Amino acid sequence: MTNIHAIILAAGKGTRMNSSKPKVLQTLADNTLLGHVLKQAKLISQKIHVVYGFGGAQVQQTINDNHINWVEQKQQLGTGHAVQQATPHIEDNSISLILYGDVPLIQRATLEQLISACKTSGIALLSVILENPTGYGRIIRDNNIIQAIVEQKDASAEQLKVCEVNTGIMAVRTTLLKKYLNSLDTNNAQGELYLTDIIASAVNDGKTISSVITTDEFEVAGVNDKTQLAELERIYQQQKAAKYMQLGLSLKDPSRFDCRGELSFGQDCEIDFNTLIEGVVTLGNNTTIAPNCCIKNSKIGDNVTILANSVIEDAVIGNGASIGPFARIRPQANIGENAKIGNFVEVKKSTIGKGSKVSHLSYVGDSTVGKGVNIGAGVITCNYDGVNKHQTIIGDGAFIGSDSQLVAPISIGKNATIGAGSTITSSAPEGQLTLSRSKQRLFPSWKRPVKQ
Amino acid sequence: MTNIHAIILAAGKGTRMNSSKPKVLQTLADNTLLGHVLKQAKLISQKIHVVYGFGGAQVQQTINDNHINWVEQKQQLGTGHAVQQATPHIEDNSISLILYGDVPLIQRATLEQLISACKTSGIALLSVILENPTGYGRIIRDNNIIQAIVEQKDASAEQLKVCEVNTGIMAVRTTLLKKYLNSLDTNNAQGELYLTDIIASAVNDGKTISSVITTDEFEVAGVNDKTQLAELERIYQQQKAAKYMQLGLSLKDPSRFDCRGELSFGQDCEIDFNTLIEGVVTLGNNTTIAPNCCIKNSKIGDNVTILANSVIEDAVIGNGASIGPFARIRPQANIGENAKIGNFVEVKKSTIGKGSKVSHLSYVGDSTVGKGVNIGAGVITCNYDGVNKHQTIIGDGAFIGSDSQLVAPISIGKNATIGAGSTITSSAPEGQLTLSRSKQRLFPSWKRPVKQ
Amino acid sequence: MTNIHAIILAAGKGTRMNSSKPKVLQTLADNTLLGHVLKQAKLISQKIHVVYGFGGAQVQQTINDNHINWVEQKQQLGTGHAVQQATPHIEDNSISLILYGDVPLIQRATLEQLISACKTSGIALLSVILENPTGYGRIIRDNNIIQAIVEQKDASAEQLKVCEVNTGIMAVRTTLLKKYLNSLDTNNAQGELYLTDIIASAVNDGKTISSVITTDEFEVAGVNDKTQLAELERIYQQQKAAKYMQLGLSLKDPSRFDCRGELSFGQDCEIDFNTLIEGVVTLGNNTTIAPNCCIKNSKIGDNVTILANSVIEDAVIGNGASIGPFARIRPQANIGENAKIGNFVEVKKSTIGKGSKVSHLSYVGDSTVGKGVNIGAGVITCNYDGVNKHQTIIGDGAFIGSDSQLVAPISIGKNATIGAGSTITSSAPEGQLTLSRSKQRLFPSWKRPVKQ
Repeated sequence: MTNIHAIILAAGKGTRMNSSKPKVLQTLADNTLLGHVLKQAKLISQKIHVVYGFGGAQVQQTINDNHINWVEQKQQLGTGHAVQQATPHIEDNSISLILYGDVPLIQRATLEQLISACKTSGIALLSVILENPTGYGRIIRDNNIIQAIVEQKDASAEQLKVCEVNTGIMAVRTTLLKKYLNSLDTNNAQGELYLTDIIASAVNDGKTISSVITTDEFEVAGVNDKTQLAELERIYQQQKAAKYMQLGLSLKDPSRFDCRGELSFGQDCEIDFNTLIEGVVTLGNNTTIAPNCCIKNSKIGDNVTILANSVIEDAVIGNGASIGPFARIRPQANIGENAKIGNFVEVKKSTIGKGSKVSHLSYVGDSTVGKGVNIGAGVITCNYDGVNKHQTIIGDGAFIGSDSQLVAPISIGKNATIGAGSTITSSAPEGQLTLSRSKQRLFPSWKRPVKQ
Repeated sequence: MTNIHAIILAAGKGTRMNSSKPKVLQTLADNTLLGHVLKQAKLISQKIHVVYGFGGAQVQQTINDNHINWVEQKQQLGTGHAVQQATPHIEDNSISLILYGDVPLIQRATLEQLISACKTSGIALLSVILENPTGYGRIIRDNNIIQAIVEQKDASAEQLKVCEVNTGIMAVRTTLLKKYLNSLDTNNAQGELYLTDIIASAVNDGKTISSVITTDEFEVAGVNDKTQLAELERIYQQQKAAKYMQLGLSLKDPSRFDCRGELSFGQDCEIDFNTLIEGVVTLGNNTTIAPNCCIKNSKIGDNVTILANSVIEDAVIGNGASIGPFARIRPQANIGENAKIGNFVEVKKSTIGKGSKVSHLSYVGDSTVGKGVNIGAGVITCNYDGVNKHQTIIGDGAFIGSDSQLVAPISIGKNATIGAGSTITSSAPEGQLTLSRSKQRLFPSWKRPVKQ
Repeated sequence: MTNIHAIILAAGKGTRMNSSKPKVLQTLADNTLLGHVLKQAKLISQKIHVVYGFGGAQVQQTINDNHINWVEQKQQLGTGHAVQQATPHIEDNSISLILYGDVPLIQRATLEQLISACKTSGIALLSVILENPTGYGRIIRDNNIIQAIVEQKDASAEQLKVCEVNTGIMAVRTTLLKKYLNSLDTNNAQGELYLTDIIASAVNDGKTISSVITTDEFEVAGVNDKTQLAELERIYQQQKAAKYMQLGLSLKDPSRFDCRGELSFGQDCEIDFNTLIEGVVTLGNNTTIAPNCCIKNSKIGDNVTILANSVIEDAVIGNGASIGPFARIRPQANIGENAKIGNFVEVKKSTIGKGSKVSHLSYVGDSTVGKGVNIGAGVITCNYDGVNKHQTIIGDGAFIGSDSQLVAPISIGKNATIGAGSTITSSAPEGQLTLSRSKQRLFPSWKRPVKQ
């Protein structure tokens, strides 16, 4: 088998980004531009070489991947020079696949075609058909055979009409690549070594350049500023939405759906407008998500109803549960089957048992709540003493009266009842009423304050 | 008068929906696809026949309409076969209008034109002009007279250029329909009975086929997958937005407005982006709705201000009231004139009197709150004892101190004051201060906990 | 220097708006249509004359600007008549710039070009190239020299093909304007005086009409109904988004970004979808805003994290602070460096010190909170006694136990601890534990209520 070596050029500063971060660290759908390219490259190559330059330490630290061979390009002397930094690390009997850290939407299938073409011809170019090719290097063919890449400024009137342009992405047998890289020179306006010039060398050498032509301009689009970044973000999201709808997901508005990660789902799930999915989220069957929810890294069961304006992160939601509106489910929350978490309720690092309800204005943290428990409005588990966090245990069938505080560590017995407004500091036994309450008093001579 | 019988074909499975529900039960703007067609059909027909097949029991149960004649199509033998199941139920001296349960945006006005055309000619077809007619049956005319419907695969190069295509929707005098249905045969690739073939029979019979031509491709678009479903949902919403704007509604972003029901409004109302209207909602004059609100089945008065991220359902909001941000108004809430419901407040099944304020972090349920009442932050009406719900009555001018609990059933007198942090379990008299409070104590030797 | 006098026509009713407000008071991005025109006009003119008619008192009151010369047009006798009302107030040796109160997106740069052209020729017209010019007055040129403006109904087949049309916006030396206005007559279908006719007079007079041609149809678009209003609102927002992205702002979705005011920002700020910016908002470096936030008139520092569904108004947020999700920061809140305001928390007219935390379900109003303070869940500052507002002071390092009420005026000493569930009515000393708490009691014979 021929090894595939991906060479990813990632040395640029990206001045037009107006950012302290190097260009390839700009993010699209919660991943860096470079991260997107790496993800595709890993699927098809045995080894990855990233050529870094501007902000190299930051790039390496952010990507933090030991499998990458990091190659420094000390001076920015052109794309050919960049690739020259990598080739000494690549064995001759291999194919080099040249990618760009700022072209994030490139797809595995296209690259596989390119590699396949390279295997036959030794050098394969990815080109794209653009409606408006102005500014790009035109692919000049004769009898369908690639003759040259002619830059905009050097093109004849006839050549300017060509809509097939060079993407810069190519697969080349490494021996050939090394040979042609050696023949590059700086006889051009910028005084740089241009990778593109290896095509001319190959043609001169009598080689046939094979090609893969895409019509998806976004797959090969580079990102140079925040406008282009936002444009590709939208394309990415449209593609996600289209894919999920094809698999049967109901989206009320595909143009208001954002998935920065991976969503999986069963049958008959509906996601209303303006939902954000982050990380890995799974939905069971027949689960619905109302507008304006943010859900991250969570596993959500069947027949779950997530009402409007809810925020869920690193949580597990059981079958038949109802969440929101205005619920905040935080990391390590595990909401049981048919449980209900209502409005203005925060659950953190807690298990809520089957059929239990926390309907309003409560904070449940560091707790284990049994089955069939009713937690009234305004109940607070006082899990923090200013220094340490403590556990609250609530037994099955307990009823916690409104506005009670459970001062942890504490345990509430099964079927216990806590009277409204109680501060519970020691454990409450099973099946009994516990409360702390002051006598209600009347102040007949009291007068309301007057306006100062 | 000639009776109009609508025959709605609704037997398909909709495999590409990837759903456990039959296709016609997929929802668009909170109504099933079939429901949309039924709504229009009812406006113009005396009797409706729905031909069901896949998931028929589910369809009948969901639609749940006694006025429909449900006709089973046991085997799926084509559109002609489907219509054949219905015609035995239709008297000869009538017009049959053939509709499709998966073509949801068909409009009454178009159907009225079609029926009118049928009255003259006996058989009238709805056609549509498509920019790209590929795949559809072309309407072939000679001297403007319909000669045939030619399917894509049978069409000549000349015929393929025709952009007028068959929608399948037609109105036919029932005697003629029955006659031509009898002449259908299964001499085709699928071995099915095609309704379309009645056009050829009618032409052979010397009949002139009249037609209504629409240019609105969406009105006659069928829904086969979730992508098409989302597309028609957007078209539907755009049309709603356009209609409301024409009537004077200010929408900050028509592409981020969803109405799944009917909205009516007075003058000078403004709805900000990302609002969801469901069911029947009415707004008075000069009422504004801030971004990200969901409002369902509610009556909202004049000069009401609904602030961002509020959720309102089955409620009445009086003139001049202010709601939100982050308010949850639940069913059977009646918010009085100039009342204020503030952030993180839930109101359920309660009346809030004129000018009363519930400004923060409260739950008011099963309550009758008088006029000019001030309910402080964090107040909870404890309406539920774990088994039964109880009422809270608060008299005019009362002041309920913050973080108090009113344990229902309970009554707070007019102009009563409840001290902050009280648990009120028996009724509080008019005009006096009532509170329950423990003595504040100091623990001088107490030490803060240390890190474990 | 030649004085520039802007004459803004603002007399129309705007019947199609279906509004009680005159057309020029309809709002776009939180400013009236007239306000937008005034803003541009002020940048380039020494004096502004607004010709009012319908709803004139309301217009003057809303705009409330003493620098405007308000000129009444008692009867609506055409645009020429409207301008005639203003010219008596304008000195001869000046340039009159004629603008329209319902053409809100006109830009300073265009007007400056127009004035410059007028200085040369005496009369300069702003025209626009439209893809579809139907309905508009065509600019007829000979040898590139403007010969006439021909209305749709009077145009020949050849003239109808002209895509350059009149915008009505013009700059004219005031002496010439007065002269040609005198020559207007009412010999037309409407019996009105048309401003456009001064062009014909000038041509007859041997004058050369200079012109500025724009291709931005929206810059010169008038607003006549709510659909057009929404359309221009979107154009305005797109332009804002484009401008900010060019300056380096990351917008996750430029089509879901609304800025009704002015945003400034440092490097590496990211704004997620569906954010609303109002008034003057500044962001430091590296600050991120999650989806569905509304931020108004606030100064937000570096490295601030604003989580989803937060509402911030007239506040200052210090470097490194974390806000939300579901936080409500109200006017005169000042959130210190690295402070945290969590979910379902409202802060009003309060200072929160460096590193202090108010993490859940609290109301902090009229308070001064020191550094390193921890305010537990459900804490309420009881700032209002029904008549007056009072202050709460919390010293550095204090720990306020959950669900406590601090009844203002009150002071909590440095490093004081307040036990959970306390009602604190008198000041608590430094470094000690203060609480108010009833004894926890058990009711062994108590039975749960039974279903009624």
